[in-house]
Amino acid sequence: MDLHARIDTAMARAVALGQGGTPPARLAEALDYATAPGGARIRPTILTSVALACGDDRPALTDAAAAALELVHCASLVHDDLPCFDDAATRRGKPALHRAYGEPLAVLTGDSLIILAFEVLARAASEDAQRAAQLVLTLAQRSGMPGGICAGQGWESEPQVDLAAYHRSKTGALFIAATQMGAIAAGHEPEPWFELGDRIGEAFQVADDLRDAVMDAEALGKPVGQDAAHGRPSAVAELGVEGAVARLRDTLAGAIASIPSCPGEAQLAKMVRMQSERIMPAAVRHLA
Amino acid sequence: MDLHARIDTAMARAVALGQGGTPPARLAEALDYATAPGGARIRPTILTSVALACGDDRPALTDAAAAALELVHCASLVHDDLPCFDDAATRRGKPALHRAYGEPLAVLTGDSLIILAFEVLARAASEDAQRAAQLVLTLAQRSGMPGGICAGQGWESEPQVDLAAYHRSKTGALFIAATQMGAIAAGHEPEPWFELGDRIGEAFQVADDLRDAVMDAEALGKPVGQDAAHGRPSAVAELGVEGAVARLRDTLAGAIASIPSCPGEAQLAKMVRMQSERIMPAAVRHLA
Repeated sequence: MDLHARIDTAMARAVALGQGGTPPARLAEALDYATAPGGARIRPTILTSVALACGDDRPALTDAAAAALELVHCASLVHDDLPCFDDAATRRGKPALHRAYGEPLAVLTGDSLIILAFEVLARAASEDAQRAAQLVLTLAQRSGMPGGICAGQGWESEPQVDLAAYHRSKTGALFIAATQMGAIAAGHEPEPWFELGDRIGEAFQVADDLRDAVMDAEALGKPVGQDAAHGRPSAVAELGVEGAVARLRDTLAGAIASIPSCPGEAQLAKMVRMQSERIMPAAVRHLA
Repeated sequence: MDLHARIDTAMARAVALGQGGTPPARLAEALDYATAPGGARIRPTILTSVALACGDDRPALTDAAAAALELVHCASLVHDDLPCFDDAATRRGKPALHRAYGEPLAVLTGDSLIILAFEVLARAASEDAQRAAQLVLTLAQRSGMPGGICAGQGWESEPQVDLAAYHRSKTGALFIAATQMGAIAAGHEPEPWFELGDRIGEAFQVADDLRDAVMDAEALGKPVGQDAAHGRPSAVAELGVEGAVARLRDTLAGAIASIPSCPGEAQLAKMVRMQSERIMPAAVRHLA
């Protein structure tokens, strides 16, 4: 099974878990809406790639970790799109969930997906309870307060923003979770994998800023110019388009250089290089 | 240390965990606002009482479980009060969190408290990883989809409501979590504790319906008449005030009768009886 199919299978199994028995039907349907089609599934792809590089000796634990991480990511998209935040009309080329199902079900879908993520990890404790608990801890730390994506979003309500903390928590946190959870699932220590996740996160933040600045809404599948419209900090505002492209290129090179020595090191470097090409917006590729 | 002080200490430690380092200050402050003053802390009191009745051989695990359950309860109050649900102006006698901090921080406070609950349980895995994982699983199942409080709230967005599923998930779920997590924390099987939690939950649902129907907003600390205003199903609408009082009395008697045999059975029955007196609204106590 290739990586993409493996992750899709894990995600489908996780979402089905939240729809079992006789649930309220519209909320159950909204769980599908929020998680499919999956897009690039970048975070679980990185997670699974790191686990494979570390030997992947408990594949069921890796699959649970990959699904859990993606569920939290999907939850964050649903809540970020709410009227009180971005008030996004579209997401992944279709109406944002709160437009399709209403605001109450959008709040509940986000909540349910977060909780489902932890349920999926708890069920995988039959594989190895210590590793499962470490996965719950790492996912929680990178999702919540004081250093996860909730904190990142929370910085936007502050009069004074700590920019480094803002970027690391808003975008970086789930990439750090991806590399560290991949290592944990395969029985390796998470600490050496911090830098790879942190640098990939930084690269994605810069790429996201570039896409918001240079792409059009149809190609992106969501509104553009949001950073400028909301006066949000952005690498493009700080460095200009060319400077941001150079920063992106350097950051990805640093990410590859940071990969800890492990059995599948070369294969993992190749995956990061592939993701790098993928995230560079076509409109600025000639500058890279 | 008495039960109330023990639970307050566990809660304070849990909330502080979400505020460490240099978090966004307003969101950090909102975590306090959402969790204090604590009110009756009924769910963690039941949880800790069950753990004590079962021997409480890992007190740190019990405290983590009690705090985690209360954090999820507090999160549910913050999200339920949002404008798209109850649009409550007040909660526990002070402005609802979204009125005090705005809607974005209310959404994020709920999300952060949910995630913090699972972090607290994961940290307690050093006591016993198997029990910690079982606690994560039980809390997730009773909080999320398809059978937890998210599902309960989700039923309110359905054209056809499964009333039994609605009540069991909306109010009952966290009481089932309370009794089962108390048993798990002390190394006992959760299944025999289902009925006690289920019956206490039913009693609280009826008591809540009674309070909404017969009390005034000042005494209750939140708006009244919400069930009638929103056309929500209620024991008072179904049975009348006297019928609902009789139902409450019978349910609590059944709860006490259902307590599984365990070392602290008598003490636990006493606690349930005390809670029973407490939840009966004063205005209808003469009917009981």
